[in-house]
Formats: sequence, structure tokens, C-alpha cells
Amino acid sequence: MELYLYDTTLRDGTQRVGLSLSLEDKLKIARLLDEFGVAYIEGGWPGSNPKDAEFFRRVRLRRARAVAFGSTRRAGARPEEDSNLRALLAAETPAVALVGKSSSFHVAHVLETTLDENLEMIADSVRLMKARGKEVIYDAEHFFDGYLEDPNYALQTIRSAAEAGADWITLCDTNGGSLPSWIHSVVRAVIPVAPRLGIHAHNDGELAVANSLAAVEAGARLVQGTINGYGERCGNANLVSLAPTLQLKMGLRCVPAEHLGRLTELSRAVSEIANLSPDFHAPYVGASAFAHKGGLHAAAVEKVTASYEHVPPETVGNRRHIVVSELSGRSNVRARSGQLGISLAGRDALVLARVKELESQGYQFEGAEGSFELLVRRSDPAYVPPFEVLHVRVRSDLRQGDAIAAEATVKLRVQGESAHTAAEGNGPVQALDRALRKALLPSFPRLAGVRLADYKVRILDSDAATGATTRVLVEAACGAERWSTVGCSANIIEASCQALADSLELFLSRSQSEIEGTKEARRSCPSNRLS
Amino acid sequence: MELYLYDTTLRDGTQRVGLSLSLEDKLKIARLLDEFGVAYIEGGWPGSNPKDAEFFRRVRLRRARAVAFGSTRRAGARPEEDSNLRALLAAETPAVALVGKSSSFHVAHVLETTLDENLEMIADSVRLMKARGKEVIYDAEHFFDGYLEDPNYALQTIRSAAEAGADWITLCDTNGGSLPSWIHSVVRAVIPVAPRLGIHAHNDGELAVANSLAAVEAGARLVQGTINGYGERCGNANLVSLAPTLQLKMGLRCVPAEHLGRLTELSRAVSEIANLSPDFHAPYVGASAFAHKGGLHAAAVEKVTASYEHVPPETVGNRRHIVVSELSGRSNVRARSGQLGISLAGRDALVLARVKELESQGYQFEGAEGSFELLVRRSDPAYVPPFEVLHVRVRSDLRQGDAIAAEATVKLRVQGESAHTAAEGNGPVQALDRALRKALLPSFPRLAGVRLADYKVRILDSDAATGATTRVLVEAACGAERWSTVGCSANIIEASCQALADSLELFLSRSQSEIEGTKEARRSCPSNRLS
Repeated sequence: MELYLYDTTLRDGTQRVGLSLSLEDKLKIARLLDEFGVAYIEGGWPGSNPKDAEFFRRVRLRRARAVAFGSTRRAGARPEEDSNLRALLAAETPAVALVGKSSSFHVAHVLETTLDENLEMIADSVRLMKARGKEVIYDAEHFFDGYLEDPNYALQTIRSAAEAGADWITLCDTNGGSLPSWIHSVVRAVIPVAPRLGIHAHNDGELAVANSLAAVEAGARLVQGTINGYGERCGNANLVSLAPTLQLKMGLRCVPAEHLGRLTELSRAVSEIANLSPDFHAPYVGASAFAHKGGLHAAAVEKVTASYEHVPPETVGNRRHIVVSELSGRSNVRARSGQLGISLAGRDALVLARVKELESQGYQFEGAEGSFELLVRRSDPAYVPPFEVLHVRVRSDLRQGDAIAAEATVKLRVQGESAHTAAEGNGPVQALDRALRKALLPSFPRLAGVRLADYKVRILDSDAATGATTRVLVEAACGAERWSTVGCSANIIEASCQALADSLELFLSRSQSEIEGTKEARRSCPSNRLS
Repeated sequence: MELYLYDTTLRDGTQRVGLSLSLEDKLKIARLLDEFGVAYIEGGWPGSNPKDAEFFRRVRLRRARAVAFGSTRRAGARPEEDSNLRALLAAETPAVALVGKSSSFHVAHVLETTLDENLEMIADSVRLMKARGKEVIYDAEHFFDGYLEDPNYALQTIRSAAEAGADWITLCDTNGGSLPSWIHSVVRAVIPVAPRLGIHAHNDGELAVANSLAAVEAGARLVQGTINGYGERCGNANLVSLAPTLQLKMGLRCVPAEHLGRLTELSRAVSEIANLSPDFHAPYVGASAFAHKGGLHAAAVEKVTASYEHVPPETVGNRRHIVVSELSGRSNVRARSGQLGISLAGRDALVLARVKELESQGYQFEGAEGSFELLVRRSDPAYVPPFEVLHVRVRSDLRQGDAIAAEATVKLRVQGESAHTAAEGNGPVQALDRALRKALLPSFPRLAGVRLADYKVRILDSDAATGATTRVLVEAACGAERWSTVGCSANIIEASCQALADSLELFLSRSQSEIEGTKEARRSCPSNRLS
């Protein structure tokens, strides 16, 4: 059976505190949603701001229908002259969403008009849109609260919209406080009046996904929500969790089957564009959604792949992840080293002890697997580091009105020689990064291909304020290869320096192994290893 | 009707990737849970690690029952000689949780024993604990998957535990993938065999809260979960969302009624101890859970308080929040200024334009209301800043093996005079903070009472790596008063300097207004204002 996904990330999603999207951002997200296969994309409220009106002028969709959102006409206004309805028509979308009041309390106290006038406002607005050839989705605001308070009036509002020709009626749990059993029974009661029913749920009780499923089980066939559950207060129903549950567990077709494998990518791309950190613990798509940390589970997963996973991670484009941490047993350390292709040769207890010691100082290897790899490599008595940092000095100079400036001086030992140099940057960390590379490049020209892809700072004991321990995560890339490293110190410059230097060292020692490996293979001279 | 909350933050919660708790942390959290009023506190797995065994030696609870967790005896072992059961007994808790297998697949492929031996393992282990006077909670692992696969065997395992005397049987959705309707029907089927039933849900489908409620609606009376939903993969059922829903919406007594008002405090205290950022969008307790951002809603909330809130925020110890942001209308700016007690005198459009301009540069006022207040104060043509920053220079010197060192030099204009000084610190930001205060203290002795309470760094366009824009948030405190300010720059030193300087400027201008206010009141000489 078909189920229609209706995305409102670009409208209701942007109501989230901390989220704002530029016009270009909105166009990028619309493209991703269209490719993923949602049925409707609500792009904004053209009557409320010029950015949204511009969005509708520029958006081009291949498969999804663009929806412009607005409210029913004002009390006492003629629909053709209502500025909001005019803005809706001016958006020239194939579909429009009209939001109207379902609660007699809200009609009296927020709209401040009569119950009959509200019914007319709904009917008039729907009729105008239908007369202009639009597909009309009528959003019944506060429906579940309104139905509790006055079921007859709430149903009358639905009848007004349906009789005026609305294509879909969406019941909204605007305050997000309803329970699934209430949602289920109300949807059952409304279906006879409006068979093409939708659900719009908010997450104020941590129940938006469950409330959407309850409505679907009761017969709703259109589900409104947002990517990653972004939305006002506690968010909207999360389409990223709903799509695989509906499709894989309830057998309802939402998106083309082969597109579900792009779900993780979609979720992360939208959080990147929205400039919000992805939630590592997000269902289905989080980096930790298929992580196995406890020694017991990791051992069990090795035995029986599916025994601790509710769906195969690859069906949603995610992957299984064995985590190394304080709670780990040696089996995790071995499994992780095995995934890295490095033999521990009995040093697993040593490595585990070192992990636990560093974690107690504030390091964290869960997000910095490059540092874990380096730790494993360094545990080999034959390991020779490609360089050592001897001295680093960083200066920032801020003068009122002037351009900002930072300078870093570094002194390294590289292959027995001293390399001493300096560089400038926007800020101290950039200056430091440039100086390190400048010192290393003459000896290691292959570093030219390495770029920094991400730089993150976390204050650990942040109530120690500016004296707190700082953890820096650096992600570097070379072609398609990516690795991340961690540094930790009360001095952000030192923490950054550690993470940057480790990042470069790991790259150099990995590529050194390859160079040596190639030489070995060619010359069959295993004794020639750098040790 | 009574419902028993069973907290497993200290055991299952710590399986979360990124979470680790010291012994002191665990004791602090246990104390908070005890005061809040949960019925059971599962403290750890004494058989798996010495920290947990030590926890049970030290924990003292006033109201809640401490529970030690472990698995049923090993296949073929005598219960009295099983090391895990011995560790459980050694914990000397009034209650123990025993986890056993419900799924015939897991018995064969993970335990690698016979179905009958598994039933004996369950019965033997429960009997031993009952003989030693323990309250026994039997956790039926993988129950909902096991029941789907082989309902007869799954029920037999429950019967084994019940007949051996288990006080509670908890059905676990170990993989977190079940749907609420399935949970509901399975609980209904098991109740006749085990009337005192519990539920343990995971969040892999974003349904842990809903699945717990579905079990309660079907008759379960013990709910396992964790604070803030911490737990392996996507987390456990979130007791912070469950407690108010069960108590306020379903009329089930979980905690003493007057304790629910401490819910927000409990949630935030646990995230502080766990050193995890609190989720601003968390249901009930998030800083944004009762935030009103869109112009429309904020206006409606002013009209009818309850119209966009599912429960009154104060019932869970939270508060309503009018947000100033790019999406705001002037009414939000006015409302927020009104809450601050500052008259805008018609400058609302000016302030709103400035907010939008700064937000487009990366500033964010939603978490930095002190900076918003300063912006409002600065918009007054009569405003005179208490000081100006002219020049700042910061140096970090890292030498292999040496203690780290940072030095800051600052030059300020204070009341027409130049103040030029220097200070050292652990890191560059601490040195800067110390230098700023040192320069200001002679002119403003009241600054001695101000301390920095929090310092946070966020990299905005983090894929620009070390060249990225950095946003710094500073929270300062003086007695019970707290305020937060923001700085933004590609140079972390500059961003920190802005946030620190604004933090001090706001304090000085607030207290200046008070001083002037007092003088005015005393002298009735309003023309004497600093302008």
C-alpha cells in the first residue's frame, strides 16, 4: 500500500531554535528530498517572508510536489483580497497547505471571531484554491486538543474543508502532547468524514514518531514530518525514523525501495547544510546506531551478526561499528585492530591499558579512531615516528580596527634533522597548521595531498571555565581517505597541536608502511624495514 | 495506581558511546535519583568490573532500593559456585536483577546450550537469590523477538522465573526494534503468566517511550529506563519523558507529586555529571521545550498562555522562553526586552535589524541573552561603554617536556584613561581573562565578585577546518545572577575576547544602572545620568 511522505523541514523545521537556512540551503535540501523520493515538499510560507517567496520562484523538482503554506483567510476578508491567500497563489506551486483552527477555544480567544465565521473562512479559502487548480492539503491545527474539548465543532471544521474540496485533511497535534492511544481513536473517528487523512505530530512528549505510526495504523495515509525531527520546541515527527519503520517493518511503500539505502547520507547532508551537529545516537542513521561497546555484546555480535541489530545497517546506508573505550574488553581492541588490518601480536592488554589511562585524562577514542590506530602503531617496539615536535610558539595580535593576525613558530626533529620555521594564519590554529606543514613538506612531499576536513573543539569540564580541559578533534582527508585524531589539554593551542601533529604522523606512518610494503614486495628484502 | 520507576542510568546508561562515569559520578547520580523518588536504582554489574563492586560498597540510599545486575548462571555450573552469582551476592543489595535468554535462537547460537538447560539456569539462579533473601527482578532479554520466533519457548522461560519465585519479570526489547502495537499484544499475552510485569525498551526505532507506555497500558507496572535516555546505540527509554507523562497524563503515581517540579534540575544535573551537553530540544526539560520562536506563536502565547504548551512548564521545573532570532517579529524583540525590564522606546526595528545582521555573521543570541541585552543597551544613544578594548596580544609557548605557558597583554581605555597590563594562564584564553580583569579591577572593584561559570566553543563551518568561524559562548555569574555572551571570529582568541569583554561590560552597565538608579532615587536628580 502507498503512503505519502510530506516533508516540512523547510517550513516547520526552521522553527527550531538554533536553525536558520539561507535560500541556497533551502534549495539544496529540496533537491536532496526530491532525489530521496518524498511525495511533498513544503517549502515555506510565502506570505510571511520574502526568502520563502523567492524559494518558490527558484525551486525545480523532478518528482516531488512543491507545497506553499499559509493560513485560511482573515476574519471578515474576501478570499480574493486576502493578502496571505494572494501570496500563496503567487507562489505558483501545484499544491498548497492551508492551516485553520479546529478548537472552539482558539477561535474565540486567538482568532477572536465566531465559530460560524471560522467555518466560512475554512470553506472559502479551500474553495478559492481549488478554483485555481491547486491540490489542497488542509491542516487542522490543534485538532486533537480541539476534539477533546468539543468533538462536534472539531468535526464540523473538517467537514467544511472536505465539502469545499480539500484533497487531504491533516490532523495536527500542534502542542505535541497527545498520547498514541488518543491519536489512534481520534483518527478512527474522523476517517468516515475525511477518508484521505494525514497526520502532523510534534515531539513534546517524545512521542511524535509513535503518534504518527498510531495514526497510520488507524488509517492515515499522509505523514508530515521533518528530516532529523527538526522543528519548534522539541521538534516535529522525524521522517528519518519513520520512513524505514513504515517501509521495512509495516510494509508501506514511502520511497522507491532502492532509495532507502541513502537515508543515512540524506540525514547527515541535511544536518551539514543546517550546520547542526549530527546526533550520533539517532535511530537508524546515527554513527552509534549500530555501535557495539560493551564487551558482552561485541562478543555476541561477532557470533551472530543480527542478534543485536533490529535491521541490517546497510538497508539504511549505515554501518556496524565496534567501539574501543574504557568499557571495552580486549576482544573489542582486537576486533578493532583487525578491522584496521594491524596485527597486535599479543600487545592487546598493553594497548587497552593505555586507552584507559588516556581516557581518564579526557581523551576519547570513540570519535578519533586515527589516534587509536596511532596508539596501536606506537605500541610496536619497532615503530619510529616520522617526526617529533620540539617547540611551538603561537602569537595572536588583535588591535582595534585592524585585521586580525596570528603567527606560529615551530621547531621539529625530522629524520634526525631540525626543521625550524614560521607561518601566519587567520587565527592561531590555522597559523600552527600551516607552520607544521611548512616544516614537514620538504621531507615528505606526499603531505601536499592532505587537507583538513574538520576541526572541532569541546570544553570538557566547562564549569572550570577558561581553565577547563579542552578536547580538539581534527579530521583530515587525502582523496577519499579520511581519518580523525584527538588532542587534549587545558591549553587549546597544545590540544590543537597534538591533534594536528598526530593527524600528519598517522598519514606519514600509514603511507610509510605502504612504501615499505611495496619495496619489500619488489625487493623481497623484509629486513630492510624502517626500524 | 502505583507505578515503579526503575533507573538503569548507572548500568545500561553507561553503555552509551561517549559516556563514562567515575565512581564519584555514580554516587552523585544515585543520590539525585534517590531524592527524586525512583523506586529502584540499578547501580552496575559487580561481576564485570571492580568500579561497580566498589559502588555497592559505598552507596547509601534513603528511599530507593539498590539493585545489582548480573546474568543467570553459566551452562553446566552449580549456582553457588558461579562467579557472577557470587559477585551479585557480594554486592549485598536488597534487590538483584538477573538477565536470562528468552529466544531459542540465542540459546542455541550465543549461549550454545540446550533449551532445557537454559530453563534450569533461569530457575536455579532465581532460586538461589530468593533463598538469600533478595528481591529478584528477572530481565527477559530479547523477549519480544524471541516471542515472535517461538512464543511457547519464550513463555516457558518466564514460567521458569516466575515459579522459582521472581518478584518481577521484565520483558526486554533488547534490539529496540519492536513497534508499540506488538509490545502491547505481547504484554497482554504474558500478564496471565506473570502479573507483576516490567518493561525495558530501547530506542532504535525512536519508540522507546511509546513502547514503555504501550506496555503500561497493557498492564505492566515497572518501567526501566535511564535519565535523558542515555544508553547503548540509540539509547534506553527516557525516564525524564516517561515520568511526567505517566504521572500528569495517565494518572499513575511514579514519584512524590511535589518532586516532579525537580525534573528539569535532575536532567541537567545528570548531564553535567556525565559531561554531556544537555539536549536543548529534550521533551519537558530542554531549554527550548517551551520556547516560542515564530512571530505567530509568540503573539498567540501572549494572548492565551496554554495555547501552545502541552503542560505548564513549571510543573516539570522548566520555564517559558521567548526567543529572539532572525525569524522573530518585532513583537518577540519587544517581549524579550520587556522581560529584561528595558524600555526600547521605539528602537525595536533597529535592534531587530542589528540582530539579523549579526546572526548572518555567525552570532547567535538564542544562547547568549546577555549579548542581546547589551545590544539593546547599546542601541540607546545615551549609552556610554564602561571600557573599550584597544589592543590584545596573546602568546602560547609549548616546549617538549616543559610545563605549558600562555601570556596575554591587553590595552584598554577605561573612563578616559589607558590601562595596559599583562597576565599568565594555563592556556591563552585563561591568560586573556586574567589580563582583562587585572586591567579593570582598579576602576571597578565590584568585578571581584564576578566569576566565569562556563566557556564553550563551537566551530561553525567546521569543514573550513582551522580557517572556520569560531563561536564562543561565555557564561558568567555573580552570586545567584548568571548571564551569557557570545563572540564570533575566525580567530578563537578574538572570539573569546569579544565574549569575555561583553560579559564584563554587561555586568558593569547593569550595575551602573543600579548605582545610578539608587543615586537618582536618593537625590531625585534624573539629569545626573551618565550620558
